[in-house]
Amino acid sequence: MSTPSLIAVDWGTTNFRAYLAGADGKVFAQRESPKGILSVENGAFAGVLRGEVTAWIRAHGTLPVMMSGMIGSRQGWVEAPYVRCPAGVRSIAAELTEFEVEGIGTVHLVPGLDHVPPGEPPDVMRGEEAQIVGAIAALTAREATFVHPGTHSKWVAVSGGAITGFTTYMTGEVYGALRGHTILGRLMRDGAPAGGGFLQGVEAARRGGPAGRLLHQLFSVRTLGLFELLPADELPEYLSGLLIGAEIAASARAGETITIFGSDELTMRYGKAAEALGVAWNRGPSDSVVAGHLLIARAAGLLGAAP
Amino acid sequence: MSTPSLIAVDWGTTNFRAYLAGADGKVFAQRESPKGILSVENGAFAGVLRGEVTAWIRAHGTLPVMMSGMIGSRQGWVEAPYVRCPAGVRSIAAELTEFEVEGIGTVHLVPGLDHVPPGEPPDVMRGEEAQIVGAIAALTAREATFVHPGTHSKWVAVSGGAITGFTTYMTGEVYGALRGHTILGRLMRDGAPAGGGFLQGVEAARRGGPAGRLLHQLFSVRTLGLFELLPADELPEYLSGLLIGAEIAASARAGETITIFGSDELTMRYGKAAEALGVAWNRGPSDSVVAGHLLIARAAGLLGAAP
Repeated sequence: MSTPSLIAVDWGTTNFRAYLAGADGKVFAQRESPKGILSVENGAFAGVLRGEVTAWIRAHGTLPVMMSGMIGSRQGWVEAPYVRCPAGVRSIAAELTEFEVEGIGTVHLVPGLDHVPPGEPPDVMRGEEAQIVGAIAALTAREATFVHPGTHSKWVAVSGGAITGFTTYMTGEVYGALRGHTILGRLMRDGAPAGGGFLQGVEAARRGGPAGRLLHQLFSVRTLGLFELLPADELPEYLSGLLIGAEIAASARAGETITIFGSDELTMRYGKAAEALGVAWNRGPSDSVVAGHLLIARAAGLLGAAP
Repeated sequence: MSTPSLIAVDWGTTNFRAYLAGADGKVFAQRESPKGILSVENGAFAGVLRGEVTAWIRAHGTLPVMMSGMIGSRQGWVEAPYVRCPAGVRSIAAELTEFEVEGIGTVHLVPGLDHVPPGEPPDVMRGEEAQIVGAIAALTAREATFVHPGTHSKWVAVSGGAITGFTTYMTGEVYGALRGHTILGRLMRDGAPAGGGFLQGVEAARRGGPAGRLLHQLFSVRTLGLFELLPADELPEYLSGLLIGAEIAASARAGETITIFGSDELTMRYGKAAEALGVAWNRGPSDSVVAGHLLIARAAGLLGAAP
């Protein structure tokens, strides 16, 4: 029977999540709060962490605390380095940033990853890597493409147990900026659209063109509203389909199956667009964050031998 | 010797411009103010117009007033129709919207243009058409590509004296939304950049890729700052080069020369990007708005015979 062995913390920009985990992956307790790093004032991260996990430490004694996410960014608590791709669990575990926190013990901060394709600017990731490490361990195939949709979507190439590279798309953030701060939002209305707008956007993305063409295609969100070719409550869906469709059309390779990790809503949205574009997909495991933290902790010698 | 024959008004979203013109193109007086339609409250357009041009009417008697620009949009004074491309001065002059304004006389509102490429959403233009009509009249070649950079850049195909089609790119507005309302603005600083950032952005655009690739390339604005590969005051330039370069790379056809109409600053920016991309360019005439209004007025029978 396992006992609590690790406190795994996934601390992002908008959310804080912590898991009390056994070495075998059992989750004894978990906490979630909106205390993302942007909500923490004056660098009071230690206080937030104590507030969330002190009860577990009182009950079970001092445990290693593993943290990943934007908490390790320049805007976070302590800046953790980036590990260069290709990277696997061992290279990640070799670059943990460790520091002591009063009332908690030792915190082990997971590094981010960077990827520098030849002749291209660098790309970076911080937060998805722990989840990916966990999902890689559960893979049966040697190769896979993981998609982490969101504010900054990540397309991750996995091969032979390592992350060989990845590409970031600013899809979610661009959607928000265009909807909230350009003329495209003016004709939009929230509502319960009858449907069709999203797939019409994906279809526009399928027609594609060169990169700059997107700057033109966006304008159709306005003209379709202006000419009443789409109802006002379908326009946000059309914009979403256009951007997500463009992301998938630019990334997916013929014949591959992508594995999507995301909330129910985003996963369904990406899956629907992938289907319309002829890209096969499945859904990634939802518990891989804890599995990833445990694998990194074990590789770093924090958990002893396998149970 | 010519006398004042027309009041030509170019009334856009942010600016109001009026010209007192003779039938031969001579400009006797002009006024410019920041009283664009967005600054006019409660639809008080008549009052603004009277404030700007009443002195001219007192001095020279009632004259036809020709207006173009967003003043004819749904957010403007009176909504003017769109004329379908291909369109020339006669089809535009046949669709003037006319109404009486107390203390002014008859106002003739120039229609917008729309263009519906087969299988594509419609595109629209409102404001550039008067300037284009004037520039077409000054053309020596039968064919030309006019570029009107700005919030919504227009690429206009001209052939045999008519506007045969056009494509809108939301380049300027997307730049503003990304800079002001996404993470890309966080690492930016205004300053006097040493130079190089703009052309580095154009070069990134030249590498191109499919439409969705732009959503990835944008992220390099962040990573180049994060890794200190570009100084903070070059990042706005890099973003500008990336977007303008993407627009030009998506639009320009091999071997053609584009004619750019814009402010000094925007024209130089587009010209620099065009050169870097191997696209020949020249600058359009700066006085074509008045020429366009006069041509439309003449075609509508408002000026009598040619002088």
